[in-house]
Amino acid sequence: ADVAAGKAKSAVCAACHGNNGISMIPMYPNLAGQKEQYLVLQMKAFRDGERKNMVMAPMAAGLSDTDIDNLSAYFASLDPAGK
Amino acid sequence: ADVAAGKAKSAVCAACHGNNGISMIPMYPNLAGQKEQYLVLQMKAFRDGERKNMVMAPMAAGLSDTDIDNLSAYFASLDPAGK
Repeated sequence: ADVAAGKAKSAVCAACHGNNGISMIPMYPNLAGQKEQYLVLQMKAFRDGERKNMVMAPMAAGLSDTDIDNLSAYFASLDPAGK
Repeated sequence: ADVAAGKAKSAVCAACHGNNGISMIPMYPNLAGQKEQYLVLQMKAFRDGERKNMVMAPMAAGLSDTDIDNLSAYFASLDPAGK
């Protein structure tokens, strides 16, 4: 996966999940340092409607598998403590 | 919420999510330092079937709201870097 491409793609995610992958909103999860494969599974579930969420559905709708791999690699690469 | 009670209740969770809240299994998420309210929402969603997962459904089935609050407080209190 291409972490740099993931970072570029992640601009819209930062609004909720934070620039460093630590969410500023208690209902929304931190993504920094999360398991890459878990992130892939969740984004695909949101995209395919297997996991229902009104905010994430439109976010994931336009993502290709490659986008999802790159985004997952990017967030997994971030420091879980947000530094 | 009662972090100590959450810790006591979390013994069964450690098998997948790790003793320190860092998962040893790529498909399963790290929980250490995750957002408390997010964890509450997810465990309730698993318990009530709103979020479908064959592994988590039976895990969450027996949890009371208090259990869920305590578990969420416990995992949120853990060092996101797993130390």
